[in-house]
Amino acid sequence: MERYDIAVIGTGPAGLSAAITATIRNKKVLLLGSKELSAKLGKAHEIQNYLGFPSVKGEDLAAAFQNHLNQMGIKITEKRINAVYSMGEYFALQSGEEMLEAFAVILATGVVQGKPLPGEEELLGRGVSYCATCDAPLYRGKTVGVIGYSPREEAEAAFLSEVCSEVLYFPMYREETTLPETVYVKREKVIAVEKRENRKAILTAGNEYTVDGVFILREAVSPGQLVPGLPTAGPHVTVNRSMEAGIPGVFACGDLTGTPYQYIKAAGEGNIAALSAVSYLDQKKLAK
Amino acid sequence: MERYDIAVIGTGPAGLSAAITATIRNKKVLLLGSKELSAKLGKAHEIQNYLGFPSVKGEDLAAAFQNHLNQMGIKITEKRINAVYSMGEYFALQSGEEMLEAFAVILATGVVQGKPLPGEEELLGRGVSYCATCDAPLYRGKTVGVIGYSPREEAEAAFLSEVCSEVLYFPMYREETTLPETVYVKREKVIAVEKRENRKAILTAGNEYTVDGVFILREAVSPGQLVPGLPTAGPHVTVNRSMEAGIPGVFACGDLTGTPYQYIKAAGEGNIAALSAVSYLDQKKLAK
Repeated sequence: MERYDIAVIGTGPAGLSAAITATIRNKKVLLLGSKELSAKLGKAHEIQNYLGFPSVKGEDLAAAFQNHLNQMGIKITEKRINAVYSMGEYFALQSGEEMLEAFAVILATGVVQGKPLPGEEELLGRGVSYCATCDAPLYRGKTVGVIGYSPREEAEAAFLSEVCSEVLYFPMYREETTLPETVYVKREKVIAVEKRENRKAILTAGNEYTVDGVFILREAVSPGQLVPGLPTAGPHVTVNRSMEAGIPGVFACGDLTGTPYQYIKAAGEGNIAALSAVSYLDQKKLAK
Repeated sequence: MERYDIAVIGTGPAGLSAAITATIRNKKVLLLGSKELSAKLGKAHEIQNYLGFPSVKGEDLAAAFQNHLNQMGIKITEKRINAVYSMGEYFALQSGEEMLEAFAVILATGVVQGKPLPGEEELLGRGVSYCATCDAPLYRGKTVGVIGYSPREEAEAAFLSEVCSEVLYFPMYREETTLPETVYVKREKVIAVEKRENRKAILTAGNEYTVDGVFILREAVSPGQLVPGLPTAGPHVTVNRSMEAGIPGVFACGDLTGTPYQYIKAAGEGNIAALSAVSYLDQKKLAK
């Protein structure tokens, strides 16, 4: 299997800045995220304080970032990472049923907005899952509910409908859905998930839906969920000024490391994280 | 006297980023530095990792920064700050014989390149000075040597020649000098300064010049020199992740806070320093 020097997880300003600097330092970089870069950035109405771009629209700043990647020949791999495991000398990154490998990992996944649903954390791994690809086989021929926080999650719901007997889809966003007819769209705001003997209930303002499994799909998972054992403080990864995240070989940058949630701060931290990762690889005589 | 909310000292990427964010937050900002922004940036051949500007020349990036300032109506005040004193509720910034005032100070002066000259630190304040405007009166009618590290210092030497009986000027750079005839230019590399009874000696490879006072003029002074009592580590100011510099109301950012010396890192830290200064002012109910 191909083993990368540095895996960068996230394609907001922090991840892109990290990927650029690590590439300049001749490291073999795997940049994981979305070809749309960052939903938050793309939707930003106007950004006034990214030095060098006065009063820029989010989409225009994103285009400048994309151009920077293009100029350097950096590609984005659209795979979602469900978990990162330390394997001693390297890290294994689980993406559905696939495993990817890298000597160092830079986390730039942004911060999870909002609180988990009531019941979500208690039932995680016991009927509630964050990963359709991983856990679909558990619900073959059964009924599942999918709570999707962005249109990207619709592909997961469509996949589940090929495996499960019934899929209820709860879009937690305003955009129109584009789903196969085998998925039942329920446009109701989910307020909680609860246990019902050995099944689960999805509660909305007016209804209750009983299912065998619940998939809660968001852009980002919490960092402690992503990297077991990682020191965290609330939704943030605890880092020092070198962006070291408490597990040797793991670095973090951007909104994930705490406030202020600012694009230029994120880009600056991505740079630091990349150079710290390069030092780590050089000291350990890892990488090529 | 006009009292500013925030004085930003330095016009490299860190200082500019700080000034922009503090201005957006409606603070009254005094941005102190050079209208050429940063000599280091202006001379940079090519910068590859300032996210959004692929393979950009230093002068072009500097022009983009200047355009950002222009768009926001932010002006640069070309005054050199010799010292920053805490006055309790506010800070006094000494610029020659003038005093400026601000409730909070953001240091973004860059890092002093190279070591002090042998003898420099021991004799500082006892015949060696960093400030022509401050100390010229001490040498009225006497002989002084000026060790200048950039052409900007020539104006100081010219001023001294109006006060002192003799001025020897040692350019520590390659550019041609433009000085009045009353200043004697000595194109010899200075290797040390020493005490000679109650005079001083400037030592070069082949010669020794005895003078009454020595002025050593560099772009940046060391941070401990600039802000008495500031916690430092070598040439760097010790900061936490909020860019607080150990004295309440004083913040630092950019190369001054340590490696990596990178433009995007500096800009990111300037943003954090500005927002921390804004929080400080708001908590103390200072500013307007």
